[in-house]
Amino acid sequence: MMPTASTSRRRSFYGWGYENEPLPAGELEWFERAWAGLLGIDHFDPAPMPRAGEIALRAPRVQPPASLAGVCTTEPHARLAHSYGRSVHDLAKMILRRDFSNPPDVVAYPQTERDIAQLLDWCGAHGIAAIPFGGGSSVVGGVNPPAGARAALTLDLSRLDRVLEIDAASQAARVQAGVLGPSLEAQLKSSGLTLRFFLQAWEFSSLGGWIATRAAGHYATIYTQIDDHVESLRVVTPAGTLESRRLPASGAGPSPDRMFIGSEGSLGVITEAWIRLHRRPTFRQSTTVGFRDWEKAVGAVRRLSQSGLYPANARLIEASEARFTEAGDGSRHVLVLAFEGADHPLDAWMKRALELCADHGGEWDAKALAEPESQRSGAAGNWRDKFLRGPYLREHAIARGVMRDTVETAIPWSGFLALERKVKAATLAAIRAATGREGSCTVRFTHIYPDGPAPYFTWHAYGDKAKLPEQFWAIKSAASQAMIDAGGTITHHHALGRDHRAWYDQQRPPLFAEAFKGAKRRLDPHSVMNPGVIV
Amino acid sequence: MMPTASTSRRRSFYGWGYENEPLPAGELEWFERAWAGLLGIDHFDPAPMPRAGEIALRAPRVQPPASLAGVCTTEPHARLAHSYGRSVHDLAKMILRRDFSNPPDVVAYPQTERDIAQLLDWCGAHGIAAIPFGGGSSVVGGVNPPAGARAALTLDLSRLDRVLEIDAASQAARVQAGVLGPSLEAQLKSSGLTLRFFLQAWEFSSLGGWIATRAAGHYATIYTQIDDHVESLRVVTPAGTLESRRLPASGAGPSPDRMFIGSEGSLGVITEAWIRLHRRPTFRQSTTVGFRDWEKAVGAVRRLSQSGLYPANARLIEASEARFTEAGDGSRHVLVLAFEGADHPLDAWMKRALELCADHGGEWDAKALAEPESQRSGAAGNWRDKFLRGPYLREHAIARGVMRDTVETAIPWSGFLALERKVKAATLAAIRAATGREGSCTVRFTHIYPDGPAPYFTWHAYGDKAKLPEQFWAIKSAASQAMIDAGGTITHHHALGRDHRAWYDQQRPPLFAEAFKGAKRRLDPHSVMNPGVIV
Repeated sequence: MMPTASTSRRRSFYGWGYENEPLPAGELEWFERAWAGLLGIDHFDPAPMPRAGEIALRAPRVQPPASLAGVCTTEPHARLAHSYGRSVHDLAKMILRRDFSNPPDVVAYPQTERDIAQLLDWCGAHGIAAIPFGGGSSVVGGVNPPAGARAALTLDLSRLDRVLEIDAASQAARVQAGVLGPSLEAQLKSSGLTLRFFLQAWEFSSLGGWIATRAAGHYATIYTQIDDHVESLRVVTPAGTLESRRLPASGAGPSPDRMFIGSEGSLGVITEAWIRLHRRPTFRQSTTVGFRDWEKAVGAVRRLSQSGLYPANARLIEASEARFTEAGDGSRHVLVLAFEGADHPLDAWMKRALELCADHGGEWDAKALAEPESQRSGAAGNWRDKFLRGPYLREHAIARGVMRDTVETAIPWSGFLALERKVKAATLAAIRAATGREGSCTVRFTHIYPDGPAPYFTWHAYGDKAKLPEQFWAIKSAASQAMIDAGGTITHHHALGRDHRAWYDQQRPPLFAEAFKGAKRRLDPHSVMNPGVIV
Repeated sequence: MMPTASTSRRRSFYGWGYENEPLPAGELEWFERAWAGLLGIDHFDPAPMPRAGEIALRAPRVQPPASLAGVCTTEPHARLAHSYGRSVHDLAKMILRRDFSNPPDVVAYPQTERDIAQLLDWCGAHGIAAIPFGGGSSVVGGVNPPAGARAALTLDLSRLDRVLEIDAASQAARVQAGVLGPSLEAQLKSSGLTLRFFLQAWEFSSLGGWIATRAAGHYATIYTQIDDHVESLRVVTPAGTLESRRLPASGAGPSPDRMFIGSEGSLGVITEAWIRLHRRPTFRQSTTVGFRDWEKAVGAVRRLSQSGLYPANARLIEASEARFTEAGDGSRHVLVLAFEGADHPLDAWMKRALELCADHGGEWDAKALAEPESQRSGAAGNWRDKFLRGPYLREHAIARGVMRDTVETAIPWSGFLALERKVKAATLAAIRAATGREGSCTVRFTHIYPDGPAPYFTWHAYGDKAKLPEQFWAIKSAASQAMIDAGGTITHHHALGRDHRAWYDQQRPPLFAEAFKGAKRRLDPHSVMNPGVIV
C-alpha cells in the first residue's frame, strides 16, 4: 500500500485547505462580524472540527487485486478525504454529524492510462462504482460514492499532473488531466502562456475536473467556459481509450469532445487534453462603475455584452452584496470592469465601455482607472480577496450554523429580471420556512453573453446545527426549482453531480437522456462510471 | 399530389440557379477566358445541358399512404431536382451522363412537425430511407439517396420557412429550419438584427442545413461556425420530438444541441432553432494588405488571430489565386481585412491590425481605407463578386470539361505550412495522373482561430468529359487523403455527406463512432435517417 499523493502538505480531509494551516490572523473575526451583522446573530458557538481518529470507517468491501495494489490504498485518511466534495451539504454532514458512513472502499492513484484501464477492468468485472476525482472541490455531490453501490473505487488523478508539450506558435499545450490550477500555471509560466482559468476553486480543482464539469473561468466574455479551450481529449473508457484529433475547429460530424465535456465521469476518465492558451496579459485597463438603478445597470451590462468590446471582466454586483464584500458602500450597484490583453493598449476599449455605462447612469472610479495599482487595494481588490477566500471560510461558517451557498444559472436577457425576482423570493421564503429567521439573497453576474447573463445568487442563513443538512437542502431545493421554473439552467458552471439531478431531469430533453444512455452503454457496458451522475 | 413549393420561379433540377435565367451577358465569356488561360485550353466544346423530358425516371418503388398524399409528390421534376446535391461529381453525373438512376421515390413537403413525424413513422414501418433536404446545396453527397436503400423519401423543408419570434433584447430569434438565407434576412430586416451568415451557398442553403452540417459563415473570427449561433433546437426524430432549453450557456451535462449540430440528418429532422443574431453593422473599416512573402503573410495573420482584435474578415489569398479572381495583380499575397460592428468606430482596431501587418512586411491599400465605397469596385470587391458567382458557373465549367473544386480543412498554426505543401503536391500530382495535364491548386484562409487557420484549397483541372466523374474522384481523393495525413480535418465547413466517409472514418475516434451509434439506435431504431451519413 502506498501513501497518498501529497507528501509535504496534506489536504484537510473535511475542509478546503491544508491540515494544520490556520486562517490568517483576524480573517475569521472579520467574517464572524460580517455574518453576525448580516443575520442578526449575537453569539457563535462553533462546533469542533472532526478529527480523523474519532471516525470508525466501514471496512473496505473489496480489496484490489495484487496487480493493482501498487497504485491503490485502503488507508483510512485517504478514504476519509475522498468521501465527499466540498458543498455546504457535504461539510455539514462531515463537521456537524461526523457522518462518513459511505466512504470509497479503495482509493487509487493511477500513474498511467494503463493503470486506469486496468482499474476500470477490475471495476467492470466486480460491479464496483468508479469515481474519477480531480481536486475534490465539487459542490454538487459529483465525487461522493453513490449510496447503493456494491463497492466504490475513487480514482484520484493527482499523479497525472504534467504539462507534456507546448506548441507556442499555436498557443496550445498538451496537459495531463490531474493537474491543479497553480501547478498548471507554474508549468506554463516560462512559455509566457496561461490558461488564466481562475475560478474560485482554482487552487483545488483540476483540468480534467474543469472539462468533465464544464467549469467557467476568469474571462467574462468569449472564453468563459472550458468548452472553448479544449482542442482535443484523451479519455480512458471501460470500452477502451479514445483520442480526438487536435484541431482549431472542425465541421466533421458532431464534436467528439463535446460529448465528453460535461459528462462528469459518466463515460470514462479524461486523462489528457490539448488546451488553448492565452498570452500573459501585458496591457490592462480596469475600474469600477457605480449605478444607482439596478435595471439601468443591467441594461448597461447588456449593451456591453452586445458591443463587440469583449471585456475580460464585467462583474455586476448588487449593492447589498457589494457592501457585504466591501466592493462598495451599499449605495450603488458595482460593475467591476476590466480589459486585458497582450497585444495593444486598451484605452479605446475602456473609453467606449464607460460611455455605454454613462448612457445608463453609471459613474466610474476615475482614480482606479488612472492608477492601476490602486485596484489591488480598492473596491475591486476587496471584492476579489473575499471571493478567493470564500471556500476557506465555508467550514468555519458551517461549524457556526451559518449557511452560505450559491446557486447560479444562465438566462436570456429578456428573462433575467423575472428570474431574479422569483429566485430571490423563493430563496428568502425557504430560508424563513426552514430556519424561522430572515436570511439574505443577493445576485451578481459572473459571465455575460450577447444573449444573456450568467447570474450568481448568494444566500446566507443562520440554521440549527442539529438540522443543518436538511435545512440547507430545503433552501437549495427552493432556489433551484425557482431557477428552472423561470427558464434558467440548473447550472452555468457548478455542474450536476448527484445533487442537481432532480432539476436536470426537468431541464434535459427526455430523448437526449435516451440518446446519452445509448452512447454510455457502448462506452461503459457494465455501468460502473460514476453511477447516478447524468443518467 | 401537390406541386413543388416554388411557384413563380422554379429551381434548375441540375444546376445552381433558377430555370430560364441565363447568366448575365459577358460573365461566361470572362470565365471561359480565365479557364483557358489558367489551364492552357484553346477551344471549348460545351456539352448540352440536360432537359427533364429526355430523362426516363425509375418508377417510384413506394407510394405514400393516403393520409400523407397531401404533402407528398412523385412528380418527375421534383424527383429529378432532389436526386443530387451540387458537387462537381453530382453535376458531372447529371450533365455529362444524364445519370438520374437513383432518384428519391417520393418527395415530401411537410408543413408541420406532425407531418414530419408521420412521414418518419411511414419510413420506419416500411424501411424507407428518409433524407432531410434544405436548400440542396450539399457538395458532399449529403442529400443523394443512398444506393442500397429499399426506397427513399426526401423531406424538403422549404415550407417551414418562417421567422416565428424575435427577442430583440436578447438578440435572438426562433426560426423554422427550412428558411433559406435571403428569406431569413428579409424577415429579420425590420428588427435591425441579422444572422449575417453569408456563406457561398447562402442563396440556396437553409438554416437547418447549416446546423445539420456545421456550416461556417461570414465572420472570420469568433462567430465563425453555426455552432455558436444555436441557442436551442427542436428536432423530430423517429423516436419523438426533442426540444432543448433556450440558454446563453449552460454547464448542465453534455450539450444536447452539440449532438445534433453536425449530425447531418442521421438522428432526425431539425425543424426549428433559436439563433443568436447580430445588430446590423453601422461601422466598418476595410482594406486589403499586400505581402510579398507567404510565410510572413501567414505570420501576420497568425498574430492577428491571437491579438484579441477579432476582425470580421481576415481572408488571406495566395498571390496566384488573387490574380485569378482579380483581387490582386499576382505580385503579392492579398489579405482582405475588415472590421465591422454596430457599437463604435473601429479606427483603433484597424490601426493596430495594420501595425501587425506592417511588422510582417504588409503594405495596405490606403485609398480603400480612406474611401470605403472604393471597396465595392476595388480588389476586395472583385474577389467577393467572383466568390458569390462561383456556384453559378460550376455547371458551365463541367459542361466544358473544366473541374473547379475546393477542399478545406483546419489545422494548428504549427502544422499549416507542411499541410499546405502536402495538399498542393498531392493535388497537382493527382491532376497530372488523372488528366495527363497540368492543373492548378491555390490556397486561402476563410476563417482564423487563435490556434490555427481554416485553409481552403481551390484546384482547377481540365479533364475528359467522358471520364470526368472518375477523374474528379481521383483528384479529390488525393487532396483529401493529404489533408488527413497532414493532421487536418476532412472538413471545416463543407460537411461529410457520403463523399467524405472514407476520410472521416480515419479521423474520427472509433469509440466515438460506437457511442454515436448507441445514441442513434435510441433515436432512430429502424435506421431510416439519412443512411450512410456519419455512421
